Amino acid sequence: MSMTMNRQVRLAARPVGLCTRNDWSFTQEPVGEPAAGNFLVKIVYISLDPAMRGWLNEGRSYIAPVAIGEVMRALAIGRVTASQHPGFAIGEVVSGPFGVQEYAASDGKHVVKVDPDLAPLPVHLSVLGMTGKTAYFGLLEVGRLQPGETVVVSAAAGAVGSVVGQIARIKGCRAVGIAGGAEKCRYLIDELGFDAAIDYKTEDVRAALKEHCPNGIDVYFDNVGGAILEAALARLARGARIVICGAISQYNVTGPQKGPSNYMALLVNRASMRGFLVGDYAARSDEATQALAGWLADGALKSREHIVEGLEGFPETMNKLFNGEHLGKLLIKVGDE
Amino acid sequence: MSMTMNRQVRLAARPVGLCTRNDWSFTQEPVGEPAAGNFLVKIVYISLDPAMRGWLNEGRSYIAPVAIGEVMRALAIGRVTASQHPGFAIGEVVSGPFGVQEYAASDGKHVVKVDPDLAPLPVHLSVLGMTGKTAYFGLLEVGRLQPGETVVVSAAAGAVGSVVGQIARIKGCRAVGIAGGAEKCRYLIDELGFDAAIDYKTEDVRAALKEHCPNGIDVYFDNVGGAILEAALARLARGARIVICGAISQYNVTGPQKGPSNYMALLVNRASMRGFLVGDYAARSDEATQALAGWLADGALKSREHIVEGLEGFPETMNKLFNGEHLGKLLIKVGDE
Repeated sequence: MSMTMNRQVRLAARPVGLCTRNDWSFTQEPVGEPAAGNFLVKIVYISLDPAMRGWLNEGRSYIAPVAIGEVMRALAIGRVTASQHPGFAIGEVVSGPFGVQEYAASDGKHVVKVDPDLAPLPVHLSVLGMTGKTAYFGLLEVGRLQPGETVVVSAAAGAVGSVVGQIARIKGCRAVGIAGGAEKCRYLIDELGFDAAIDYKTEDVRAALKEHCPNGIDVYFDNVGGAILEAALARLARGARIVICGAISQYNVTGPQKGPSNYMALLVNRASMRGFLVGDYAARSDEATQALAGWLADGALKSREHIVEGLEGFPETMNKLFNGEHLGKLLIKVGDE
Repeated sequence: MSMTMNRQVRLAARPVGLCTRNDWSFTQEPVGEPAAGNFLVKIVYISLDPAMRGWLNEGRSYIAPVAIGEVMRALAIGRVTASQHPGFAIGEVVSGPFGVQEYAASDGKHVVKVDPDLAPLPVHLSVLGMTGKTAYFGLLEVGRLQPGETVVVSAAAGAVGSVVGQIARIKGCRAVGIAGGAEKCRYLIDELGFDAAIDYKTEDVRAALKEHCPNGIDVYFDNVGGAILEAALARLARGARIVICGAISQYNVTGPQKGPSNYMALLVNRASMRGFLVGDYAARSDEATQALAGWLADGALKSREHIVEGLEGFPETMNKLFNGEHLGKLLIKVGDE
């Protein structure tokens, strides 16, 4: 029997600014048998998320940074190929923090079983995964969305943003998306049913928000930070809620990050700005899955994935998160289903 | 009968940065008889509040700016000296937006009657006035303070800040004040019972917050913005609430205001930052007055006013709000009780 090798991507150096290929090392090691209480997963798809950039920095955050030499942390989905764990059987499809590699050993922590009949595997990392749940809890719980309100979301053609806008529509709200480029804006309106889209690359975002949000913004779901956050602050409705999900415009900044200079709009409008992490809603994960799967089944919610094949291109694929080259959820395919 | 004159301070020009004497004009006009439905107030004390600086700027805010040529807007307390209003009788003590002048005509809008037996008149503009209510609703409602939590307040020796810290102590919380200078810090600890005080003029605020808030900050009540807001963001406890009451470090800035560059600490700590205006709690004003008067009566809460005599010095007196030259609530006395 030939020895199966596990190819892996490890962090080689702490990146300064946008990652380069030199920040990563590519390793191989034999795939062993799972230890007692563990099981082995053959990974099919790896999820790429902007938060991964934050995990590369040293310092205090909500999770420890990835150590130098460690396999890069990532969510992934795959199939159990060997098991010494009573709760996980060979052949089961599972999703969890398996890392940027082809095989992962797991003790089941943070791993969930996936029903492959519910949707294709990529969708379980997208609308039915952390991505969809981030949109769901962020908009409905943190944003306390009410019917008839106006929702603005940045990085609207991205994985989380596209779900946010669609849930807003499902909940009877006006959805305005901010994205980069005409193709993304067309996609938001024609394919996802957003009420309006703003191309931040060619439009004056403040003027466009004034036009598309005549009564102000009730919920601003922010994925980008920077100048777009300031533009949204300048257009808040009274009692508005800003949901801080991310700040991709700032993740690769090498100098001091930019804070919103007009944050006192929070006072003028009796508004709030609140950060959250979807992991805090793990106990209510099933509720979100049920709702999202229902909307997916009845066609109210669309999932779109941008799938890149192969681990070799990981450094460049990860950078797509920040250069705007993709639509929807970015995934790497590393194995066959 | 000689004609009584009403001396007034009017806005002459929109200030750039800190106000100067040239931004104001001093006028006099005869005190007329009140029209039907109006009454006349002889003002005794005028309240000086940092928010007044904001009212001088053009542009969208929570209240229209003071117009050029208009009597400067201010809260004040005085006695009714003539009345054509069925609800207000001669001799009654009233508080309201009477402006920077010696006499005011009023139709009763936003005017409240004051019980002079409850406390000396200055206290009704201080702990029992808008100032105390701002602290009360900001800390307890917006900040959702829970017993045992750690509260940090900036401009802690100021009118609102000193009440915030005292209420925190009353509610069984740890109170940490940030103020400028050793005298103010001593005052916070020795006279007001704060647990700790940080002198931002001589101490490293971040290091001091780490020392005095070993478990992080649960509620940060911000009156100042700028670098101190950033220092607080860097020390938040999980689930922290930042109450945005003011940003006096930014009110006289002539360039772009500074936003908190580390606002993503809100995400890391699942924290919120919320602005408010005490006027939104007007319907619950009595609840606050009852509570504050009770604490005042039993000695748990102390009120301190810094009273300057005379309208003539208004420009310089108002600037004391920003140069840190006073302790407690800043008032101008313009008439005899």
